[in-house]
Amino acid sequence: MRTFYPENIEDVALGAAVLGTGGGGDPYVGKLMAIQAMRKHGPVTLLDLDEVDDDSLIVPSAMMGAPTVMVEKLPKGDEIIKAFQSLEAYLGRKIDATMSIEAGGLNSTTPFTVAASLGLPLVDADSMGRAFPEIQMVTFTLHGISATPMAMADEKGNSAILNTISNRWTETFSRSITIDMGCTAMIALYSVTGRQLKQAAIPGTISFAEKIGRTIREAQAAKKDVIAAVMAVTGGFRVFHGKVVDVQRRTERGFARGEATIEGTDECGGSSLTIRFQNEHLVAIRDGEIVVSVPDLITVLDAENGEAITTEGMRYGYRVVVLGIPVTPKWRTPAGLEIVGPRYFGYDVEYVPVEERFG
Amino acid sequence: MRTFYPENIEDVALGAAVLGTGGGGDPYVGKLMAIQAMRKHGPVTLLDLDEVDDDSLIVPSAMMGAPTVMVEKLPKGDEIIKAFQSLEAYLGRKIDATMSIEAGGLNSTTPFTVAASLGLPLVDADSMGRAFPEIQMVTFTLHGISATPMAMADEKGNSAILNTISNRWTETFSRSITIDMGCTAMIALYSVTGRQLKQAAIPGTISFAEKIGRTIREAQAAKKDVIAAVMAVTGGFRVFHGKVVDVQRRTERGFARGEATIEGTDECGGSSLTIRFQNEHLVAIRDGEIVVSVPDLITVLDAENGEAITTEGMRYGYRVVVLGIPVTPKWRTPAGLEIVGPRYFGYDVEYVPVEERFG
Repeated sequence: MRTFYPENIEDVALGAAVLGTGGGGDPYVGKLMAIQAMRKHGPVTLLDLDEVDDDSLIVPSAMMGAPTVMVEKLPKGDEIIKAFQSLEAYLGRKIDATMSIEAGGLNSTTPFTVAASLGLPLVDADSMGRAFPEIQMVTFTLHGISATPMAMADEKGNSAILNTISNRWTETFSRSITIDMGCTAMIALYSVTGRQLKQAAIPGTISFAEKIGRTIREAQAAKKDVIAAVMAVTGGFRVFHGKVVDVQRRTERGFARGEATIEGTDECGGSSLTIRFQNEHLVAIRDGEIVVSVPDLITVLDAENGEAITTEGMRYGYRVVVLGIPVTPKWRTPAGLEIVGPRYFGYDVEYVPVEERFG
Repeated sequence: MRTFYPENIEDVALGAAVLGTGGGGDPYVGKLMAIQAMRKHGPVTLLDLDEVDDDSLIVPSAMMGAPTVMVEKLPKGDEIIKAFQSLEAYLGRKIDATMSIEAGGLNSTTPFTVAASLGLPLVDADSMGRAFPEIQMVTFTLHGISATPMAMADEKGNSAILNTISNRWTETFSRSITIDMGCTAMIALYSVTGRQLKQAAIPGTISFAEKIGRTIREAQAAKKDVIAAVMAVTGGFRVFHGKVVDVQRRTERGFARGEATIEGTDECGGSSLTIRFQNEHLVAIRDGEIVVSVPDLITVLDAENGEAITTEGMRYGYRVVVLGIPVTPKWRTPAGLEIVGPRYFGYDVEYVPVEERFG
């Protein structure tokens, strides 16, 4: 247990953007919301996973939708509270803590807004170990935990409660409502007991994001090689470096989809790398071959300052280094790959762990 | 107050199809479900509107979606109970009675399934006086009554509760969920007190549908002019008669949309009439001019037996008579026309009451 202050948010946001693999929302938006809430309501208690009471009720809170839209349509701040409280009312039971559903720029820090505003502790864990685009892509699904009842709210005052027979159906319904809400929605889902959480969650995600962020900040201050520092702390591999020469993106079925092409420097033998994304980076293709794929993390770092670039922030001319980072072993099982492997996303290739190609 | 038996359903279904103006679902499906439920659980108490207790809670139950799909994807029967009960649980209060949201083939009889299964009385009223395609198109909206909380359920076991800031937003969200549920959903919405119901509802709709049905049945048995009998009981006008020469329909955004063209007999001067529909018939166009439009009823009767033909039942070669029936005065006000007038549906014409052209 530790007390988490507004000034600690910066490192979390910086580091979570690395784990967000291009998605998980803009770190800047989530950071500002969380800092504002903590300045108003006080700091947040961060609980280690093993400190959570077995019988307590924990509900993750998050923002759902296309990150490209989130940047332009900022949340008011109270809609996430409304989603959370409407789920609490529906459950008819006090929720004891909140947490991040994913490690991503926005969604790592969004729950701090809820925790601070409602005076709840925040569990240092998440259910992806990175960011993924769809609701069912959580370790909770691997443990048979239902996403519903799920609460959704928008900034206009609309809300919904869903109850579905599978987490894939939750994705279907909630995506449609998110689109109707204007491509962004605030959500509360996957109510779990402390006992379930200890089995299903990925521990220490907030601390890990904070550690990555601190590493970046300290390397920048010491004028060290930031990219090498990120590789060391994440266990990542250098996949490519070059200049962004093309970015195509479209908002489609509530997702930001598209691809970015990076032209290699001479060291890369003049070849190019194309990264395809659906909110998050899915595959990196070099000379027609997929060289890194989900569920491993494909992270694009700014070659100048070593910070992660989100898909919506990617621009022509940026000098970048692409890292491949091994994902948590939970996703490398057959059950995990069925939910988040390349075939789910329509790429008919076997998953090859990034360290086998680049290690 | 009267007791309503399975054998009374036939006339209601027959008559409600006339008021359904092509929509409101297939009378056959709704009839079978209601008869089955009443045979199993016993008859239903039909309450006159003025017999409803002011402080009682009434919730209409209905099927939502594209009638073309409803014909092929029959409800299991328990999903409408599930929708109703999930709203009751959400409200945290016993619901005292149910009713029809609209007068249409399926939705006039659907609430009998709920009433019989749950042992609730059914109020002899509705909130359209006909059938309309969208959720907000009810007299409740004219009286400022919210559609939400609204419950939805499908045959797979999925359900949702919506809370929206306007009845137009309810339509948007529930239409998306209906599409995801496979273009049909069972719904419970517009919870009202007896006091509100007396102000906002259209009284006697079930009895009126039954009277129309009985009129058709008796005229058929007596080999009288069924069409003339329907005109007499509904106050309708003969707009056109001829043969269906073309029917186009498509399922689009959860609606059955399309048009039917009827070629006139010699008496019609060789001209033709085109009826455009969105679940229900919206406009009848003769020689390029709209001659009947929403909110007046456009009803297509089979020239052989005088029974109403739904949009999904319309076929090439049918000999038909088209009636225009004056709608309840509630819809002829400026506020009513804003919600259900021709302009809402994209036809830039003034509404002309059917009796002014054909009376």
